[in-house]
Amino acid sequence: AQAEAAPVDLSGYTRVKQELVAPPFAPKHEQVASGGPKIVEIELITEERLMVVDEDTGAEIWALTYNGSVPGPLIIVHEGDYIELTLRNPTDSQMEHNIDFHASTGALGGGGLTHVFPGEETVLRWKATKPGCFTYHCAPGGAMIPYHVTHGMNGAIMVLPRDGLKDGEGNPLRYDSIAYIGEQDYYLPMDENGDYRTYELAGDDYADSMDAMRTLVPTHSVFNGAVGALTGDNALRAKVGETVLMIHNQANRDSRPHLIGGHGNYVWETGSFTDAPLTGIESWFVRGGSAMAAMYTFEQPGVYAYVNHNLIEAVLLGATAHFVVDGAWDNALMEQVVAPRSFET
Amino acid sequence: AQAEAAPVDLSGYTRVKQELVAPPFAPKHEQVASGGPKIVEIELITEERLMVVDEDTGAEIWALTYNGSVPGPLIIVHEGDYIELTLRNPTDSQMEHNIDFHASTGALGGGGLTHVFPGEETVLRWKATKPGCFTYHCAPGGAMIPYHVTHGMNGAIMVLPRDGLKDGEGNPLRYDSIAYIGEQDYYLPMDENGDYRTYELAGDDYADSMDAMRTLVPTHSVFNGAVGALTGDNALRAKVGETVLMIHNQANRDSRPHLIGGHGNYVWETGSFTDAPLTGIESWFVRGGSAMAAMYTFEQPGVYAYVNHNLIEAVLLGATAHFVVDGAWDNALMEQVVAPRSFET
Amino acid sequence: AQAEAAPVDLSGYTRVKQELVAPPFAPKHEQVASGGPKIVEIELITEERLMVVDEDTGAEIWALTYNGSVPGPLIIVHEGDYIELTLRNPTDSQMEHNIDFHASTGALGGGGLTHVFPGEETVLRWKATKPGCFTYHCAPGGAMIPYHVTHGMNGAIMVLPRDGLKDGEGNPLRYDSIAYIGEQDYYLPMDENGDYRTYELAGDDYADSMDAMRTLVPTHSVFNGAVGALTGDNALRAKVGETVLMIHNQANRDSRPHLIGGHGNYVWETGSFTDAPLTGIESWFVRGGSAMAAMYTFEQPGVYAYVNHNLIEAVLLGATAHFVVDGAWDNALMEQVVAPRSFET
Ligand SMILES: [Cu+2]
Ligand SMILES: [Cu+2]
Ligand SMILES: [Cu+2]
Ligand SMILES: [Cu+2]
Ligand SMILES: [Cu+2]
Ligand SMILES: [Cu+2]
Ligand SMILES: [Mg+2]
Ligand SMILES: [Mg+2]
Ligand SMILES: [Mg+2]
Ligand SMILES: [Mg+2]
Ligand SMILES: [Mg+2]
Ligand SMILES: [Mg+2]
Ligand SMILES: [Mg+2]
Ligand SMILES: [Mg+2]
Ligand SMILES: [Mg+2]
Repeated sequence: AQAEAAPVDLSGYTRVKQELVAPPFAPKHEQVASGGPKIVEIELITEERLMVVDEDTGAEIWALTYNGSVPGPLIIVHEGDYIELTLRNPTDSQMEHNIDFHASTGALGGGGLTHVFPGEETVLRWKATKPGCFTYHCAPGGAMIPYHVTHGMNGAIMVLPRDGLKDGEGNPLRYDSIAYIGEQDYYLPMDENGDYRTYELAGDDYADSMDAMRTLVPTHSVFNGAVGALTGDNALRAKVGETVLMIHNQANRDSRPHLIGGHGNYVWETGSFTDAPLTGIESWFVRGGSAMAAMYTFEQPGVYAYVNHNLIEAVLLGATAHFVVDGAWDNALMEQVVAPRSFET
Repeated sequence: AQAEAAPVDLSGYTRVKQELVAPPFAPKHEQVASGGPKIVEIELITEERLMVVDEDTGAEIWALTYNGSVPGPLIIVHEGDYIELTLRNPTDSQMEHNIDFHASTGALGGGGLTHVFPGEETVLRWKATKPGCFTYHCAPGGAMIPYHVTHGMNGAIMVLPRDGLKDGEGNPLRYDSIAYIGEQDYYLPMDENGDYRTYELAGDDYADSMDAMRTLVPTHSVFNGAVGALTGDNALRAKVGETVLMIHNQANRDSRPHLIGGHGNYVWETGSFTDAPLTGIESWFVRGGSAMAAMYTFEQPGVYAYVNHNLIEAVLLGATAHFVVDGAWDNALMEQVVAPRSFET
Repeated sequence: AQAEAAPVDLSGYTRVKQELVAPPFAPKHEQVASGGPKIVEIELITEERLMVVDEDTGAEIWALTYNGSVPGPLIIVHEGDYIELTLRNPTDSQMEHNIDFHASTGALGGGGLTHVFPGEETVLRWKATKPGCFTYHCAPGGAMIPYHVTHGMNGAIMVLPRDGLKDGEGNPLRYDSIAYIGEQDYYLPMDENGDYRTYELAGDDYADSMDAMRTLVPTHSVFNGAVGALTGDNALRAKVGETVLMIHNQANRDSRPHLIGGHGNYVWETGSFTDAPLTGIESWFVRGGSAMAAMYTFEQPGVYAYVNHNLIEAVLLGATAHFVVDGAWDNALMEQVVAPRSFET
């Protein structure tokens, strides 16, 4: 069918290159599109790399990645734009990879047209017809699908409405920064002593991973690839009065983010921008296999923890990030009237 | 209370019989109701049958079913209609059964009025006052409730608004076909070697099933009763330009369907038709214990996989169906610009 | 930052004391606020107590509670009110506690300002700026966060709009009673025989609890602290024609409530009152780490079970409550046309 398809007329489109950057950051982009629709060229390299998941236990994984990071880089376009992807699998890879864009239409989201073996490249162009945040991920077929996805091979694209984000009444919503957070469930095999196994090459953990995945209970659920990747020196930063758009990607497993000390002022819980955002939310829900967005304007300084509010997953499995927010405290919102003190019994 | 209740006047109602059919098909029905409200007569037989769950492993279950299928047949009526059910438990059954319709009001959804032992029948009439898709299931009491439900004894009813489905602005939405998909979590007991146990009679696995269920981790999560029931020769079929209404029933456990290569154009995520559908959704959420509906118009030919997008559940546990869609490829939506080829290093 | 913050002017506010009561009951309150905004004084005592979780198995836990109950008491204020909390940790406690209000803004929801060791008290005042139902819980830091939360240390606050609840068109919605239900997932350690372990003091189960929590599979998921706390003599009561507001708190783990034989006529699924309620819902979804509300007007007498509709969790893990509803049966809604009888084969 594809061989006989009519050629597409791209004469009205401008070509631009989008330089992808590592998470939690977002590529340069306009919130409101200027000019007509574009062909946005991006490049993804399938990189297999040994990553430390948790320095405390030494747990590590032969991560399967796009461009070396878990999650893969955030892509941002506007509705009506084309994405023209070059996907390249390095010669020294062990495995076949491809990519399925939930934002696209047909051919298994492009998965059917992008299988690249080590040493191969391919180019796929598709039109972003639906505004929203969407997952992309590797899906080489059969049991390799959950294997690649739970080894980190997933990320998100945001397709903005051409005139930008809006609230339920059509008023524009703008953000000062994006925090791009990928939650990754890992199923790391253990030996009989409960120690995490190590493997020489990417793919060597395949059989053991199958057993671990079948429990449906991850050993880790981390933000941006590893325990602590977004805390301490790597914490996210903002100022009182600033608005952050938190983009949460979870390509496999449900999550329920909560910003401790804050809220989701506007939450596109399914990721779709054609529906009005939810408002005033304490904990929102990420359907496994989706990317979504929540917007918050900080009102107080201090540390905010952004967690998967299954608190076992937040603390024992790793799903915690920190925002450090500067500014002046507002006693009208909260005040410690009496600091902790002994009381007379 | 019921013995003293005033008789109901049914003089304004027409009687019709609905011939139920096996999933994934839908009974003959009107999308917009013609004429006044009806009494829709249906018949359900509680059939206990040994079913193969997965041919590869030989896993089997003494399924508890309505009319022999997992899920039970789809029922379709309009808001304001009565359902008049004859429920019959064959003489050679091992167990007591009943039925709880989430769409109904009172008496535990009818569960309290329909307990039939082997060799018994009963007739229940109830009014469909709430439009939407709703689960029905067996609920004989105590631990038998999850036991019967996780042995396949559940299905869905769709209560259409009399004037049919609508989008958020009140415009009519029509479908060309229905794909009725029941997702079933099974908890199959294994022996010490990890092989699935076999049992002589329905109910013999009761004690072992209790242990397996308590883990909350299913051994299988399948569409329409068995691994592969909706793939290969049994794949669903459609054409480019056709609109399919996917009705997803999950009587026990959450799910997150995704149509690989497509979307949910209109998604009634809770199943209620009194709320506007969500639009432009990548992965939607089925609350355990509910039936829901998602509508999609195919834009490209090819194979689409409909999965529970916990990809471990989709691939390792069985939650995968296929749509095979005929038609002409549209390069304006997606094009393979460069087929996979070696690149110069 | 807080030391230098400008003082807040509270001259326009009236002070009132709210007497908190044990669940499933609600404190005295107005549905529509009369007069201007208030400072609502409440008192919470952190009580560590040995509780029986399941009389059948003898399973028990050193529960960590607010005011002795699991969940902690329901607090009700109106948008714009201040909550002024005195939090007191008795001298004979084993552990440090604090409180994080999801409804509040800043300082980790107050968690950063309320750490009280045994023998200490503190006072925190914060403004309820977002209407909705919200979780509160203990969050002393690190692994103690899920430990305290899964030992019962959580509850809910409802922040009503000043002019009360409304449907999606702005019409007032009023309730006759509140049923306040806290769902609690416990992870009780077992010995090698599968018997629940006992411990001498609160906190002694810490290491074993960590192992149990890491499975992510609770041994119990109960309403109001223990199996059967809301059934039998403790069942909730209502009359046909009465409207109940069911407030469901789950501070850690997802749930999917369903009222067997009834519905959610109006469901604020995320708990937010700034979004229109869902309507006509069979099973709704509680995001782990949230409180929410569902409203139903009973139309038939009889027993209604309110369950987590993962029926394994409802029946085997304990998540079942009962409503006993008095009134006259309505054959127009449902009628047993033929009682179970033998049929001719
Ligand atoms: Cu891959
Ligand atoms: Cu996918
Ligand atoms: Cu049954
Ligand atoms: Cu049910
Ligand atoms: Cu505590
Ligand atoms: Cu919290
Ligand atoms: Mg499309
Ligand atoms: Mg392949
Ligand atoms: Mg999305
Ligand atoms: Mg009703
Ligand atoms: Mg019975
Ligand atoms: Mg439904
Ligand atoms: Mg705020
Ligand atoms: Mg501390
Ligand atoms: Mg809430």
